[in-house]
Amino acid sequence: MEPRPAAPGPCPGDSRVAEAAAAASPLHPAEARVEPGRRAPSVAAVLPAGGSGERMGVPTPKQFCPILERPLISYTLQALERVCWIKDIVVAVTGENMEAMKGIIQKYKHQRISLVEAGVTRHRSIFNGLRALAEDQPNSKLSKPEVVIIHDAVRPFVEEDVLFKVVTAAKEYGAAGAVRPLVSTVISPSADGHLDHSLERARHRASEMPQAFLFDVIYEAYQQCSDYDLEFGTECLQLALKYGHVNAKLVEGSPDLWKVTYKRDLYAAESIIKERISQHICIIMDTKEDENHVGHHLEEILKNELNHVEVTSGALCPAGRDLKQIILEQCYNYVCVNVMSSDFEETQRLLNMLEESNLSILYPVVVISVYFLDYKSVHFDQKVENLMQIREYAKEVRKRNILLCGLLIYYPQDEQKLQASLREGATIITTLIKERNSGLVGQLLIA
Amino acid sequence: MEPRPAAPGPCPGDSRVAEAAAAASPLHPAEARVEPGRRAPSVAAVLPAGGSGERMGVPTPKQFCPILERPLISYTLQALERVCWIKDIVVAVTGENMEAMKGIIQKYKHQRISLVEAGVTRHRSIFNGLRALAEDQPNSKLSKPEVVIIHDAVRPFVEEDVLFKVVTAAKEYGAAGAVRPLVSTVISPSADGHLDHSLERARHRASEMPQAFLFDVIYEAYQQCSDYDLEFGTECLQLALKYGHVNAKLVEGSPDLWKVTYKRDLYAAESIIKERISQHICIIMDTKEDENHVGHHLEEILKNELNHVEVTSGALCPAGRDLKQIILEQCYNYVCVNVMSSDFEETQRLLNMLEESNLSILYPVVVISVYFLDYKSVHFDQKVENLMQIREYAKEVRKRNILLCGLLIYYPQDEQKLQASLREGATIITTLIKERNSGLVGQLLIA
Repeated sequence: MEPRPAAPGPCPGDSRVAEAAAAASPLHPAEARVEPGRRAPSVAAVLPAGGSGERMGVPTPKQFCPILERPLISYTLQALERVCWIKDIVVAVTGENMEAMKGIIQKYKHQRISLVEAGVTRHRSIFNGLRALAEDQPNSKLSKPEVVIIHDAVRPFVEEDVLFKVVTAAKEYGAAGAVRPLVSTVISPSADGHLDHSLERARHRASEMPQAFLFDVIYEAYQQCSDYDLEFGTECLQLALKYGHVNAKLVEGSPDLWKVTYKRDLYAAESIIKERISQHICIIMDTKEDENHVGHHLEEILKNELNHVEVTSGALCPAGRDLKQIILEQCYNYVCVNVMSSDFEETQRLLNMLEESNLSILYPVVVISVYFLDYKSVHFDQKVENLMQIREYAKEVRKRNILLCGLLIYYPQDEQKLQASLREGATIITTLIKERNSGLVGQLLIA
Repeated sequence: MEPRPAAPGPCPGDSRVAEAAAAASPLHPAEARVEPGRRAPSVAAVLPAGGSGERMGVPTPKQFCPILERPLISYTLQALERVCWIKDIVVAVTGENMEAMKGIIQKYKHQRISLVEAGVTRHRSIFNGLRALAEDQPNSKLSKPEVVIIHDAVRPFVEEDVLFKVVTAAKEYGAAGAVRPLVSTVISPSADGHLDHSLERARHRASEMPQAFLFDVIYEAYQQCSDYDLEFGTECLQLALKYGHVNAKLVEGSPDLWKVTYKRDLYAAESIIKERISQHICIIMDTKEDENHVGHHLEEILKNELNHVEVTSGALCPAGRDLKQIILEQCYNYVCVNVMSSDFEETQRLLNMLEESNLSILYPVVVISVYFLDYKSVHFDQKVENLMQIREYAKEVRKRNILLCGLLIYYPQDEQKLQASLREGATIITTLIKERNSGLVGQLLIA
């Protein structure tokens, strides 16, 4: 196998979570590490993002539709920029979306992005992107790459692995593209709208993205191709074949490569993203030596009920497992078990740490502040009224994309009843993390 | 245009919401009414449901995966059985799923369903379904239809309109099928995995479902076709062409016809269903002549914020708009504004009416019991403790698929503050209806 072009994993220069460089992100497991050996090609990417999204049935072009309040294209940029060996990412956007795109890059701290103006068709947008990378452009700060990746702004789930495969194949064969099996049979209609013939499903593939090309192959193809190609063409691999006489290598891609096309795809993308950032829950407990603390029972129940989810615990005090490390590993879910007499001291300290990190720039972080209520030691109403202050805290941290809720778990003497209320508490925690809906922040839920 | 085979709209015999027969369901608007004229063909449907769902990556076959706790196939059956002119629906399921399927039919009160054993391939399952409809089966209670619809168990969003179109075209041409534009370019690979050629996207179509056939055409095709066809074929239209020499009429379908194939499609289907049943909110208010009641302000805010959602109001007393009619129109969202001195009287009456109807058999019904709290007239803590009883009511009605929550809206004298808390209340109501998550039932939320 070819050596990777350069080190995979989060880039050292990522200012959002700087120290995370050493750790592979749990959202994007880097499957292999650098292998020494052959010279790595220089790689850039071009992302046409000038589409109007007419199939979506919504006025906003689909690449700018929000998922968890962040535009779809930002997720795609995130997927590309975390691959260190892609040195430049050229995005083609229409003039009217140029300022919005600059705002997105600034807000989400995207890096290595250059913007060019989109053309009226997809092929023209790609051509503009390639021109910006070509050396014959006098004012360009960009340098010509050996290999160029072409990807879609609306395929946010592209993994480093498939990018690596198409780049490697492009270096060897001149062009390469990801393909998938067909979901439906493809048929050819006659002029009067009847079936002429159907294609054998197993002998055809759907051409997906990413694709990669030796820069000179695809740039020359675009320079030679006709206006008809630029207006009505849809397939870069076809241009490389027609004008560069290169039969692209086809790479089998994963189902994740699908293209956000219809409104239902936005729903699916949101659910997938929510699911991915819910795979790790950290329970914050400063319970010191008290191994029998009820917080540990809650942890056990969460571990049992969510057996596909990593449940870890951390502590705010220096003696415990380093919470900072957990934040760096991009855990987006915190259950803060309050054991001190003061109601908000621990939650407040956790919130401060989260705000100091830049964790919530990309995804909303859920914090659930848990209180156990022993009916014998405190009057219920007094406690509730006291805890209602959580509304004010929640309003404040909401501005920084942290979703805070309170959870009061009934703590009776009866062991069976306690188990029931702990299970109910675990269900509420699971629901809040899974839904990640800002409409319920500041609520005090009761289990 | 051809006359409809028979009256569209909910079937008179639907025991779930019997009186709804006269009203078109808001989920499935019937676009046209019966036209007198030509003889309508007799129509049956065959639904192959023997698939293993290997592409889904989950152990449960996809047609049995739950959406809002109900199996996907039940949604597809619901879509077919509401079309009165389909007289029989034959479902092919594997032996091991036969009992589960019988349970689904009973639990959700599906009608006009016959079960047959699935074959090892899709084509063999369809053949088994057709055999059951053929007149040459001595023990069959079914009679041979003039036209047969073939549909997929995993395409739950099929509308009456497209069913009507394929049936009409099948009667005229012998065969017809729904098609959609291609989302990706289709390519043909060479034997060594390189691009051989790509197909012009505009000259091809994806073949979707439903399809319809003159029964004799498709049944004879299946009787004549080879074992190879039955094992490896995927396209019924192709069999009609090859053995019946019928060039099927192609009917352009809507994007809704897509096939639930991957896990992301289940997410999308759930979101679409949740969105569809959230389009109508009924506010229950027995405010009599008090037009200035704060409940009306809440109604106005909901109307303004949810301008795509129908917000109506009803009353429990006979003088108001008939709540029964709203239930019959299949409204799945109720906001019950409590104005009486007793905290739960009105909510209890609403819950009783909902339980008497069979509304919650198919979808979870959300009920939000709203209380306005005037700090001057009642002590906060006392009120909260009183309202916590809602947990017990919620637990009880949860068993009947009703999701009950409480919402306490702060009611200060200050007009501006009141507007703010009403807006917050509207946000919480919207969130609860949109998420429809059973994990939060019985909670008392505070705006």
